[in-house]
Amino acid sequence: MTDVVALGEAMLRLSPQRFERLEQATTFQVVVGGSELSVVSNLARLGVSTRWVTALPRSPLGRMVANAARQQEVDTSCILWVEDGRVGVYYYEEGAAPRPSQVVYDRKGSACSLLRPGDVDWTTTLAGTRIFHTCGITPALSAGCRALTVEALRAAKSLGIVTSFDLNFRSRLWSVEDASACYREIAPLVDVLFASVPALEAFFGFGGGAEAAAKRSIDRFGVHVVVLTERVASGMLGATVSSMAVADRVYRGRSWEVEIVDRLGAGDAYDAGFLFGYLRGDLDLAVAYAGAMAALQQTIPGELAWITEEEVQAALAGDTVQVKR
Amino acid sequence: MTDVVALGEAMLRLSPQRFERLEQATTFQVVVGGSELSVVSNLARLGVSTRWVTALPRSPLGRMVANAARQQEVDTSCILWVEDGRVGVYYYEEGAAPRPSQVVYDRKGSACSLLRPGDVDWTTTLAGTRIFHTCGITPALSAGCRALTVEALRAAKSLGIVTSFDLNFRSRLWSVEDASACYREIAPLVDVLFASVPALEAFFGFGGGAEAAAKRSIDRFGVHVVVLTERVASGMLGATVSSMAVADRVYRGRSWEVEIVDRLGAGDAYDAGFLFGYLRGDLDLAVAYAGAMAALQQTIPGELAWITEEEVQAALAGDTVQVKR
Amino acid sequence: MTDVVALGEAMLRLSPQRFERLEQATTFQVVVGGSELSVVSNLARLGVSTRWVTALPRSPLGRMVANAARQQEVDTSCILWVEDGRVGVYYYEEGAAPRPSQVVYDRKGSACSLLRPGDVDWTTTLAGTRIFHTCGITPALSAGCRALTVEALRAAKSLGIVTSFDLNFRSRLWSVEDASACYREIAPLVDVLFASVPALEAFFGFGGGAEAAAKRSIDRFGVHVVVLTERVASGMLGATVSSMAVADRVYRGRSWEVEIVDRLGAGDAYDAGFLFGYLRGDLDLAVAYAGAMAALQQTIPGELAWITEEEVQAALAGDTVQVKR
Amino acid sequence: MTDVVALGEAMLRLSPQRFERLEQATTFQVVVGGSELSVVSNLARLGVSTRWVTALPRSPLGRMVANAARQQEVDTSCILWVEDGRVGVYYYEEGAAPRPSQVVYDRKGSACSLLRPGDVDWTTTLAGTRIFHTCGITPALSAGCRALTVEALRAAKSLGIVTSFDLNFRSRLWSVEDASACYREIAPLVDVLFASVPALEAFFGFGGGAEAAAKRSIDRFGVHVVVLTERVASGMLGATVSSMAVADRVYRGRSWEVEIVDRLGAGDAYDAGFLFGYLRGDLDLAVAYAGAMAALQQTIPGELAWITEEEVQAALAGDTVQVKR
Amino acid sequence: MTDVVALGEAMLRLSPQRFERLEQATTFQVVVGGSELSVVSNLARLGVSTRWVTALPRSPLGRMVANAARQQEVDTSCILWVEDGRVGVYYYEEGAAPRPSQVVYDRKGSACSLLRPGDVDWTTTLAGTRIFHTCGITPALSAGCRALTVEALRAAKSLGIVTSFDLNFRSRLWSVEDASACYREIAPLVDVLFASVPALEAFFGFGGGAEAAAKRSIDRFGVHVVVLTERVASGMLGATVSSMAVADRVYRGRSWEVEIVDRLGAGDAYDAGFLFGYLRGDLDLAVAYAGAMAALQQTIPGELAWITEEEVQAALAGDTVQVKR
Amino acid sequence: MTDVVALGEAMLRLSPQRFERLEQATTFQVVVGGSELSVVSNLARLGVSTRWVTALPRSPLGRMVANAARQQEVDTSCILWVEDGRVGVYYYEEGAAPRPSQVVYDRKGSACSLLRPGDVDWTTTLAGTRIFHTCGITPALSAGCRALTVEALRAAKSLGIVTSFDLNFRSRLWSVEDASACYREIAPLVDVLFASVPALEAFFGFGGGAEAAAKRSIDRFGVHVVVLTERVASGMLGATVSSMAVADRVYRGRSWEVEIVDRLGAGDAYDAGFLFGYLRGDLDLAVAYAGAMAALQQTIPGELAWITEEEVQAALAGDTVQVKR
Repeated sequence: MTDVVALGEAMLRLSPQRFERLEQATTFQVVVGGSELSVVSNLARLGVSTRWVTALPRSPLGRMVANAARQQEVDTSCILWVEDGRVGVYYYEEGAAPRPSQVVYDRKGSACSLLRPGDVDWTTTLAGTRIFHTCGITPALSAGCRALTVEALRAAKSLGIVTSFDLNFRSRLWSVEDASACYREIAPLVDVLFASVPALEAFFGFGGGAEAAAKRSIDRFGVHVVVLTERVASGMLGATVSSMAVADRVYRGRSWEVEIVDRLGAGDAYDAGFLFGYLRGDLDLAVAYAGAMAALQQTIPGELAWITEEEVQAALAGDTVQVKR
Repeated sequence: MTDVVALGEAMLRLSPQRFERLEQATTFQVVVGGSELSVVSNLARLGVSTRWVTALPRSPLGRMVANAARQQEVDTSCILWVEDGRVGVYYYEEGAAPRPSQVVYDRKGSACSLLRPGDVDWTTTLAGTRIFHTCGITPALSAGCRALTVEALRAAKSLGIVTSFDLNFRSRLWSVEDASACYREIAPLVDVLFASVPALEAFFGFGGGAEAAAKRSIDRFGVHVVVLTERVASGMLGATVSSMAVADRVYRGRSWEVEIVDRLGAGDAYDAGFLFGYLRGDLDLAVAYAGAMAALQQTIPGELAWITEEEVQAALAGDTVQVKR
Repeated sequence: MTDVVALGEAMLRLSPQRFERLEQATTFQVVVGGSELSVVSNLARLGVSTRWVTALPRSPLGRMVANAARQQEVDTSCILWVEDGRVGVYYYEEGAAPRPSQVVYDRKGSACSLLRPGDVDWTTTLAGTRIFHTCGITPALSAGCRALTVEALRAAKSLGIVTSFDLNFRSRLWSVEDASACYREIAPLVDVLFASVPALEAFFGFGGGAEAAAKRSIDRFGVHVVVLTERVASGMLGATVSSMAVADRVYRGRSWEVEIVDRLGAGDAYDAGFLFGYLRGDLDLAVAYAGAMAALQQTIPGELAWITEEEVQAALAGDTVQVKR
Repeated sequence: MTDVVALGEAMLRLSPQRFERLEQATTFQVVVGGSELSVVSNLARLGVSTRWVTALPRSPLGRMVANAARQQEVDTSCILWVEDGRVGVYYYEEGAAPRPSQVVYDRKGSACSLLRPGDVDWTTTLAGTRIFHTCGITPALSAGCRALTVEALRAAKSLGIVTSFDLNFRSRLWSVEDASACYREIAPLVDVLFASVPALEAFFGFGGGAEAAAKRSIDRFGVHVVVLTERVASGMLGATVSSMAVADRVYRGRSWEVEIVDRLGAGDAYDAGFLFGYLRGDLDLAVAYAGAMAALQQTIPGELAWITEEEVQAALAGDTVQVKR
Repeated sequence: MTDVVALGEAMLRLSPQRFERLEQATTFQVVVGGSELSVVSNLARLGVSTRWVTALPRSPLGRMVANAARQQEVDTSCILWVEDGRVGVYYYEEGAAPRPSQVVYDRKGSACSLLRPGDVDWTTTLAGTRIFHTCGITPALSAGCRALTVEALRAAKSLGIVTSFDLNFRSRLWSVEDASACYREIAPLVDVLFASVPALEAFFGFGGGAEAAAKRSIDRFGVHVVVLTERVASGMLGATVSSMAVADRVYRGRSWEVEIVDRLGAGDAYDAGFLFGYLRGDLDLAVAYAGAMAALQQTIPGELAWITEEEVQAALAGDTVQVKR
Repeated sequence: MTDVVALGEAMLRLSPQRFERLEQATTFQVVVGGSELSVVSNLARLGVSTRWVTALPRSPLGRMVANAARQQEVDTSCILWVEDGRVGVYYYEEGAAPRPSQVVYDRKGSACSLLRPGDVDWTTTLAGTRIFHTCGITPALSAGCRALTVEALRAAKSLGIVTSFDLNFRSRLWSVEDASACYREIAPLVDVLFASVPALEAFFGFGGGAEAAAKRSIDRFGVHVVVLTERVASGMLGATVSSMAVADRVYRGRSWEVEIVDRLGAGDAYDAGFLFGYLRGDLDLAVAYAGAMAALQQTIPGELAWITEEEVQAALAGDTVQVKR
């Protein structure tokens, strides 16, 4: 009865006041962030029933993370509450050109990173699910998490559930080589693959442009659909976002000019928008929603989801009123 | 002895932190806002003696609104303090492209909306006044307020006072049809009419461009001067503002590139700038001030007035120093 | 499968910074508050499965209220989402002796106050429930709500569900006479009655001290248990709290010295603590938890629940370490 | 037509967050403070028409001070707007026992301190006034201000206006000797004298207890009434306040237990409360209001007035409800 | 030329707004805290030249910690800047009776905890030093830190430097047994021992009251002086603090009534006050300063030092003015 | 052993919240700012040993300023602690087009402005220094400061120390004529001169473009190198920055597109970047660092330095990743 189940870690994101450097901070804004949680929370806001699987310590901080998921209408009944491991933290410093934004990870030893195969009862967890989603951050957390990721994808496959995976490479977590080996192991288990064009080249050696690289992924790994995104920046505070997917044919969304408020979480909103359309069996809708949600997400502080479907539709309908009153 | 008297409602405006969505809010910034109050507070800051007529409940919130008016040097001695009715609230969420800004009204049952003809002693209230101003929000509040608006305009007319009216259509308060009927009743009572070109077409059926539509308003209703504004957006955070008025001839102001900090209140500052020049009998000055004040107002958080005449003059003089020190 | 279902309204509570007067406010802290929601959220934190029934408008503010309930692990699936009615607001100003704290209600016309009998399908809503709870605020909201409250209590009774009711008189909502008439209609439908000793006298005419008044309630109305609370203030910022219940015999809890951080919500935490013990069939535990939770609640900003059972137990065990580290 | 006119300086008060030391500050709360302004703003809130005389620079900071006065309904039309002189500042650090609260003055060179006799047209300024009030801070600011103070008191006397003076000794502004000499010059010009018992001894040599010292002031200087206050602290955050006046007989108010939120401004509220009663010709009311207002003022952040007469009356009536709802 | 050198870890302390629970937090106040750093920063504020030895990662957070030390005039030239290890964090939730304050440590894997014997060049680091100080937290961090602590104390001893050690037991870091074994190894290397009376009993088995236990410590371990503290709480927000030392004779300080603003850091300020007097060779001064500084420290937010010697002297002189102005 | 010594004043900068006008402020952000301190703090962050010479009052505010310098690793041992004089303040209001940013100085009577020749022992202060730096603000403070500036430059010259001077004209401190006379007296004492092209023309009459004006400065005054900067604004919130120096030949840096967060301090960062390269004897590096640091500085709130050399190098290497993670 749960349409989408996701596996992954969430952390506390601590950020100084707008544009302050970390060293200057006297207060931190705290929000909960995590790629897969962000995907399912965006889906939940669009009315899709979702569940999030992770491990959290029995502590106020662990509860804070679960509270945030529930606030977004994500089912938290399958979270593993553990005695060992911490809630990871990352510090996020917002940049302005020419100073890049910066993430300082402090996530080692998190409860989620201590997960291993066998910790999750996939049969129960995935019962009645249509899509299982995770991303490249999860296997990067630890050897145990890498094995768990493969285990999860296999379990989903064997249950006839569509598998969804976003490469989401994090250079501060592992090397290109390690990621590449893992991605090659995982790709044959994936139905919906989210990737950037440079990533397809870097990790799989698939060059020749977006369409060619996507088709090679389909041919080589048996992926059903490859979803690509492009984001062109203008300074740190402006961007153009566009969306594209390759399956039986190429699907393209419109492009969006974005005034960036918070750049993190755009990729996750993109994935959620696509999966929403995919669940409806409409890939044109999927790329349209993917682009709109990625654009909207960057105008909202924090990483979880606060967009309604009505707003996505209004944006796509070209509603240009600047103040609704 | 009071140059300008205005009638209308003010509310508390509650806004989340910069760019947060309403649902995310843990604190609200609170300012007082209201179109006619904003017009007279802007005029007061330029040295014009002003008075504001409204109804407020005897409560801390009612006093908060009156305090804000007095802080701006607006005379509050004719405010009606009542037992019934609340202080209206509106929630304001700031957008960034492609997410529009959003106003959620919670103003039903306000003390001001309960006003009816006969509640205000216009002879006393308007004694010695040169201009009476109100806008299209006031008659939209209730049938009583609509009748009161007409009563007020008639009283002003009969006392030989110049009447000023800004169409200020609010789609969340009434329909185009209702507004149109009301505006057509009111227009013959108006000397100075503030409107956008599309509004002249929508409510009066006056097309053919700015000048033509303005002239038809003059011809049809006997309006003395029609003041038009144009605002072209670049994203949600940039705009080009220009000003224009049509009376015996066409008056045009320069255009302004604006970095938007707070979009609300620009139209009211515009009206105030125009009326300032109008009081001096100089329509060239009026359109110049109108444009400058609308531009400056959008760079200031909140809706009431914090501009000095010296600053308007410096802006018009093309002062381009970026930091005054 | 839901142990406790509650019916009632929640509002946004807007408060100036610590000890500021409302008129001084430039920001408001916003939290969600509502007596019955507070009861079930406290129960949910203790591991009891709960559901909250109310009406909310389809708006960001309506969603904000539901989000807060879900964040606390309260089931929101039976909330009625409506087009009419607003989210009520109340302004809360914190006092210090000799200045009392102050609540300014702005709740007229709320979605919940528009509810009428027939709006809720009680059979579905109450399926598998052990306790139904509401309080004296709900029937005070409107005639429709009063009738709905009676309807709900009757439905619960007929389904063999324990009914729980807290008199919770609010003088700003109705008169003593109206409340008295309503309470007398409701009392025969109630199994667990929460009341203060003066309230038993004022509304039912039951004097003669706590025990006598409670016994008369039992005799007259067939109430199973009357739960009484006493709170003696020392200034505005200190209090002594004690708890007591009368059923087959008198149950007494210990008394607590409290350093008050936020006085609102104490009664609701008290009710939750009692119902928790009642569900376990242990009235000694019930009065103990009631007192401990009322004491702890007053040390926490806001009205909803952030207490764990472990903390209640530690407090009852007399843990006196001042910093846990 | 203005009942009370006051002369004196106001400053910006800059305070770190609650209990932070000045050196720790990363933000300052800013409020406007000034003894005589505080007296008239308290009176204005009680419905007395008031006017404040001072000098302010034509600058945003000067306007900020005047705005604050007007917000409180104090007439600012006789403020002298000058080119020379600054807006004084004082830094206020809140203490907790055993750390005292601390004021760091940075007020040298203020516009007000540059005032000299002849700068104010007393005939116009005092027209129709019943009471003229100032305090010992004003003559301490500069030789010019000392002379101006004397000039003002003489002008008031000659116009038949009651003169009111609070000794208000500030050791960081002048020596006991200088203050003593000045107070002895001024006392014969004063009708209503506010002082502490130790001050009467220190500056006039009047010992022998409150009543005796007050009577000697009356005998020696011809003062009509001597108003005395006593404040006994319990820690830094608690106090007992009582009030007393000596004229034809001794008038005593009740004592108040206070939970202190902001200790500054209590003396000014006290003066205002007394003058309110004095204007009504009721010295019993005067001492009652003096004590109640001093108590209430200490529960409110900042120094200006936010008390209503209804609240004073409720406090005096012994209203002990802790939350009004 | 550095009078006092200290070894130990510092962390970021993250705290919700006043009295909020961790789960409620949307912002965290961030300050740097660490027992030994707090001791030397307090000494530095009193004019003693100090140095702090620790390990920090080359990261914005590592720099933030060192910046805070330098801000307090502590020499940071001997900090080890490392590639491995994080900056530890602890979450601090402020309680009010009956809810205790709470520390949630997240300090595993800190750069400092990775230190081992041999990492610090003690000869250079301690050159010209009079006192070396550390506390029981440091050996509790890891086996390496325990060995390093012993190494440091031996090095100091061999250089003829006075060694100072505060037991500072942390139950969340190690067991009573492990601590006891370590303390017994360390005690013979200690000249100045800070301990509570219960700790002397728990870890060394020295009972019989303060004086007896202290004398046994002196007899058994050759400690020169045992410094004892007692703190009696009244609620969470009030306390009585007194000080006492036992050497050739018993030295006693006065007791202090404290209104608690921030309870953490009191013990460190106490140690600093004592060492200040010890450096002057005046143990009466030492216990006096110890008590005064512990009392003052609890009135200041955060853990590092913001007290001046002038303030300590004023407190000891019994200065009872409540507002200095 | 100190590479760079700077002389100058620092103040508290008080700013309302982002884009608020001064009159609207209810809180001020407080940071320490001062041109020469900013130069040495930027250098210190790049690893250069620096010292700052100024006068500060013995007060919490004086200590706050020195704390900020030490936090940045600037040596404060030669600060003169005085009894007279205050800590200057300036109010900074951030603008958005077309509203300029605005500085309101309140710095008269500062401790630094009271300095006179003879107050500083230059031989000790400058021992072992390679560069002495000050700017045109210092001689503008007072006649004493002007004489002190000349004294300092002469002392440096006579000790064989490179002298560095930035014209930094402030129209609110003195007239063009006075500045011109002073600059002409000072220029022959300067080795490294920072100036804008219009300033060379206005104060020295050197026209004909950047290169020609710089060469004439070299020829006329014997300056070694003239460092020029150009900043072209796009609105108030965007700018293009480029750098250039003229010595034996012309050195040019690349230009930078900047999203402005805080415009103040850019010139000081520029100077620091140049002096860093100058100390390495590499003027190409100097102009490159100057431009990069000026660009980066404008993206950081406040005026002191929070840039690392690694970041300067990354920016110069064309690192265009937008989020480092």
